[in-house]
Formats: sequence, structure tokens, C-alpha cells
Amino acid sequence: MNVTQHRQQLTALHNKGYFNYGGQGPLPEAALEAIFNSYRHIQNLGPFSHGVGDWVAQELQATREVIAAEVQVPSSSITLTENVSMGCNIALWGIPWKAGDHILLSDCEHPGIIAAAQEIGRRFGVSLSTCPVLETLNEGNPVEAIASRVQPNTKLVIISHLLWNTGQVLPQKEIVEQVRSQNPDTQILVDAAQSVGSLPLNLTDDGVDFYAFTGHKWWCGPEGLGGLYVRPEALETLNPTYIGWRGILTTTTAQPKGWKADSRRYEVATSAYPLLAGLREAISFHQSWGTAQQRYDQICKLSAILWDKLGQVPQVHRLRTTPPESGLVSFQLESGQHEQLVSALEAENLMVRTILNPNCVRACVHYFTEVGEIEGLVEAIGHFCKLTV
Amino acid sequence: MNVTQHRQQLTALHNKGYFNYGGQGPLPEAALEAIFNSYRHIQNLGPFSHGVGDWVAQELQATREVIAAEVQVPSSSITLTENVSMGCNIALWGIPWKAGDHILLSDCEHPGIIAAAQEIGRRFGVSLSTCPVLETLNEGNPVEAIASRVQPNTKLVIISHLLWNTGQVLPQKEIVEQVRSQNPDTQILVDAAQSVGSLPLNLTDDGVDFYAFTGHKWWCGPEGLGGLYVRPEALETLNPTYIGWRGILTTTTAQPKGWKADSRRYEVATSAYPLLAGLREAISFHQSWGTAQQRYDQICKLSAILWDKLGQVPQVHRLRTTPPESGLVSFQLESGQHEQLVSALEAENLMVRTILNPNCVRACVHYFTEVGEIEGLVEAIGHFCKLTV
Repeated sequence: MNVTQHRQQLTALHNKGYFNYGGQGPLPEAALEAIFNSYRHIQNLGPFSHGVGDWVAQELQATREVIAAEVQVPSSSITLTENVSMGCNIALWGIPWKAGDHILLSDCEHPGIIAAAQEIGRRFGVSLSTCPVLETLNEGNPVEAIASRVQPNTKLVIISHLLWNTGQVLPQKEIVEQVRSQNPDTQILVDAAQSVGSLPLNLTDDGVDFYAFTGHKWWCGPEGLGGLYVRPEALETLNPTYIGWRGILTTTTAQPKGWKADSRRYEVATSAYPLLAGLREAISFHQSWGTAQQRYDQICKLSAILWDKLGQVPQVHRLRTTPPESGLVSFQLESGQHEQLVSALEAENLMVRTILNPNCVRACVHYFTEVGEIEGLVEAIGHFCKLTV
Repeated sequence: MNVTQHRQQLTALHNKGYFNYGGQGPLPEAALEAIFNSYRHIQNLGPFSHGVGDWVAQELQATREVIAAEVQVPSSSITLTENVSMGCNIALWGIPWKAGDHILLSDCEHPGIIAAAQEIGRRFGVSLSTCPVLETLNEGNPVEAIASRVQPNTKLVIISHLLWNTGQVLPQKEIVEQVRSQNPDTQILVDAAQSVGSLPLNLTDDGVDFYAFTGHKWWCGPEGLGGLYVRPEALETLNPTYIGWRGILTTTTAQPKGWKADSRRYEVATSAYPLLAGLREAISFHQSWGTAQQRYDQICKLSAILWDKLGQVPQVHRLRTTPPESGLVSFQLESGQHEQLVSALEAENLMVRTILNPNCVRACVHYFTEVGEIEGLVEAIGHFCKLTV
């Protein structure tokens, strides 16, 4: 399908050059309409009635199924959540920690997840350490950097599938295999904020235990809706923590009597149900353009163009020495004026962001980014650099 | 203001007789428009940009302020949450439990909260017991039923301000005082699902520690947005549990370095921000009709009418022996065919619900319910009873 025509659905792109897919993706017009129609439907049928209850249950299940098919897992292993962090927290707090246990994190994790892991450490007497993945961006072996640091008491390894700061894709399947060969009891929690919607995925094959994602970045769904995959083998030992009526079974006198059999046990209570149709519509929008592999190939083709053109700006230092394997392209300016660059670009309706660790600017391309858009960005960056020399 | 005209904003009421405010309130048209406009605004400015980030921060703060003014607390004590259960869980999991601690619950709590408390009990060796509040609906003293069961090791009392099953309003301020006089270290968590938006509230004066509420019931806001009040004195000892970037402070190299100073520390990550304007618009809709006291008085006037008319149906047994002090009116049928009644009424576009403990049917009136609507409901109930004798 013609990209220019396809992009018409993304109204956010009509008035700007957009390179912040790692922050939030633009909502297709059809997704916004589906959200709006869901609101109307709920008001028409209820808002609280058997009719709405049945419809919401169908919406939840349909959404779990669409998500499950995209990441190649059973729909019963999908918990719907508000965002990536909620998914990570469900995994973190559900593990039966004992004092002396150990958590191993990569050194490229998001501060919110680090803070959650630190609080686990404080409360349960669990030790934390990090492994040096950042330095393997251009050379070295991330698998070894992680697996070699798994200890006999390492209960959990926390990594991101696609690093939010440098755009590096970690070889997830190999990491899982090597970690388990070091310690068969170690579980793997993956922050999938950047990978879902941008990489072709088969989580069943990769074997991760917990995979926390969101719909509002690379999938271009509405903010406030994401999910968690819990490997069926990990379900029995992962306790629900934040608990509400959506996760439990009750007796005929409304007393709790256990958890729902599948990953719905980690869902809590009332959510913004109208968003469900919006996410399904967004995923369908991408499928109408091509397969996950075709979209990923196009992302890589376009990020190579961005990476290449950035290399022609003398004041720009690209973090990667070879074309990226994802849509995230991070770079530094000689001047170090990263925040100033982002603000100057935003004033010209060009959206990128700073990253603080490592200190850089990040520009993202999606499969529907246009080459002209990339050229406009690099030109503006070059112009900024000349002005600030 | 004329109620018939005011109700025009509530499109859900155009095609039915609605009595499920305790489940979900109808969304004013202006609230839906505000939500839709927020989506458009985010797409226009971003979706991810400094512009959107600043706007979202303003939306969050404006919403905390509107909520805080309604319940008479500082806006810094309001945490925005997805729903009531999330608020209850933040309080439950944030308390530094020790084995041997005790939780006292009323016997009228929602199964989701009971299940969460039971999991706390299981994980930390905390004991649970219930106190008999249900039997004080028509006679007896709920304050004594609760306070007399507070033990030296009782760390938390869990009650609802307005009982979801019987509609009883508990004298919150007196309960807090009596519980604290029994044990000054006992904290009080209140499930406010039914009270926020229906009772005039002054939480500062009442002195509760944790008050968990939602916007989508009596406030008629969108589903998926609620909040938690944490008493300023309770903030320092209540640890954040589910943790994400919205609750933490970070260093210049993006490392966590502590919690935000106020109740935002319990917020986690990306939410459905367009809903914020919807909730504010819904609250403003109610304010345009009258004060919280005027609305509550009108609710009681209308629930007395419903209660009175139900008393004229011979097969109906009302749980209360005197007119209700809230908009919830619960009753039983001689035949016990509660689920059948609810389905039969829904087929006639009259929405009520069953409650399983005690076994009954619940019909709710709001301040904008019309007397003709009540008459239609009672007539249909009478008709059902005659058919099923």
C-alpha cells in the first residue's frame, strides 16, 4: 500500500515531522472513531447493565486475542494492564521473594523499573546488581554480559528486548537459554515498551517468563492500555498482588474463593474499556499495510537512511557505528546542546527527544515514516549545529 | 435548574429508566466532548512532545484540584488512580506489615477488597477478622460494632463510607475517633466507591487515613479514572508499591533518587489522559445544578419516594425499615427471583442489579432521577411480581 495514502489516517502527522514513536505513536483516525463509538455504545446499552457487561467481556477477550496473535502466545496468557510499568510491577511483586535472593538488571533499564526493583530489594532483603549491556552496543556480546552474571541466588533477570536509549535489540531467545543454563530457577522479566509493535515477535519460542508491553507506542494505540504476557509455566508461582473483582472467583454469597484460571487473575477492576476497540483498530491498521516482518524490514530500511544522513552532519556523533537494527537512532552533538536541539526542532514542528543515560538525542522512524520527513529532520539538525558552532 | 432540561446532557437516560448509579453513572455529553477534544489536542500537539508533556501535567494537576475541592482536602494529598480497587491496593500494600498484625474489616466489603486483604494476610502473617455492621442497618450502633473490635495489634480497619449492598451510611468521623481512642496506631482505609459524588464530604474533618474512590459512579465521569486520598500524616509511613516514572524523582543521569514529595508518589506511569477533562466536566455538570448538600438532599428525597412506593408492592421486602439515607434502595422479593427480575426489567429498558450478600436487588436514584422514572420502575416490579406469584 502507498505510504502517503496510509499515513492520511494518522492525523498527528499532518502538521509535523514526527520521530517520537518510542514515546507515543500517532493514533489512527479509525482508532479514535472506534473509541468514540464504544463510548456511545456503552451509554446506549447502559452504562451499567447485563448488556454492557457482556459486551465488555467480549471486548476484553477480543483484545487479548488480537494481542496474543501478534506476539504468538495463547490468549489465556495475556493480562490487560494500564501500561508497561503496571505489567513489570505485577511480575516484580508476584514473585515469592526470600531474603538473600538476587535480581540482575541490565544497565539500560528505565528508571521507573529500577525504582520498583530497588523497593523490592528494600522490603524483602533482596540484592540487586547490574550487568554491562550498554557497552555491547557496537562490539561485545550482550548474552555473555548478562548470563555470566547470573548467580545461584538470582531469581530474576530484568532486561529490555529493545533498549529504549540506544535502540539495540537484545537476542532474547539466546539470553533466555543461556540464563537458564546458568540457573534453571532464574526467571526473565522483559520490558517490551519498544519491541511490541516494532519487532516481529514469537514469545512462545523465545521462552521469556514475563513480557510487559504497551499499546500506545509502536502499535499506535491509545495511551492507558497495555498488557503483560505471563508464560503458562510461570503462572502458578506468580501471585496476584494488586487484587480486585476482575481477577477473582467468588462464591454464591460474593465471598472470594480463588483466582481466575488464566492471566486474567492479574487484572484488577474497572478500566477505560472504550480504549480496547481503539487498540484493536490500530493493530489492524498496521496489518493492512504488511506483515510484522515487512513492517520491521521497512523500519530498518528507513532507520538506515536516517543513520546514514546523520553521519553527513559533521557535529553529529551517532552512538551506533553500523546501521541500526531498530527504528531508534540515538546521537550526540559535539556541543552537548541536546535539550536546546529538541526545543529548537519542536519549534519547527519536528519531534525528537533527549535521553539522559547515555546523554544523547533519540529520533525514531516507523514503517510509515517518509524519506522526505527524514531529510527535513537532518537538514534542521544540520542547521542547528551550524548556528550553535 | 430544571431537571428535565439538565438530564438532556445524559444521553444514556434518553432510552431507559436508569437505576444503576452505584454501578456506573451516565456520562454527560459535555464530558464525552471534552474527552474527544483531548484526544484531538494530543494528536495535534504531539502525541509525544514537550507541548503535550506540559499539557498533561496541567491536566493532571487541574483534575487533582477539582477532586480535592470536592472532598475538602489539599490537592497534594490526591493520587490519581484507575479505579477504587487500585486506591485500596495502594493503601493495603504500602503499610509496613509485620507478622502478627491484624486487619479488621466490616462484613459489608466488596469481594475484591476482601481478596486483597486476604492476600496481605497470607503473605505477611497478618490476621483478619470481620465486624458485624450489616446487622446495624435498622438498629444497633455501627460505631460500636467496629470500634469495640479494635485490638492492640489492629493496624488497619477497612470500612465503606456508604455500604454498596444496603445503602447504609456509616458515621465516618465518629468511627475514626472511636477507633483511634481504642488504638491510636490503627489506620482507617475507606472504600468510597458509593460515597464520592453522592454524599457531601469533608475528609479533612473526618480524619480518615486512606479514602479510595472512582469518578465513574456517582460523579458520572468516564470509567477508568479514580483516586486515592492519603491523609498528609499518613504519607510518610505509606510506601509506594507499584512504582513507575510518574512517582519518582531522578538524577541528571536518569537514576531514581526518591519519591515525589506529595501523593503523586503513588502514581505509576502512562494513563488515559484524555479522560481527565471528562471527569472535570462531569463534576462541573453537577455543580451547575446545585451544591453537594443540595444534591444529597434531593437524592434522599427521591430515594424516600422509591422506598415508599416499593412498600406498596406486597411481594417486596425492603431491607430498610425507614427511608434510606442514600440513593441506594435494596429490597428482596418473596419469590427470591432476583436475577429473573433484573433480566425482565432490563428487557424493558429498566436497569437495576442484584446483590448477593445480602441476597437482594439494588435500585439507585441520583439527584436528577425523575419521579415518573421511579413510578415506571415500581410499576414494572409490581407487574413482574404478579406474573411470578
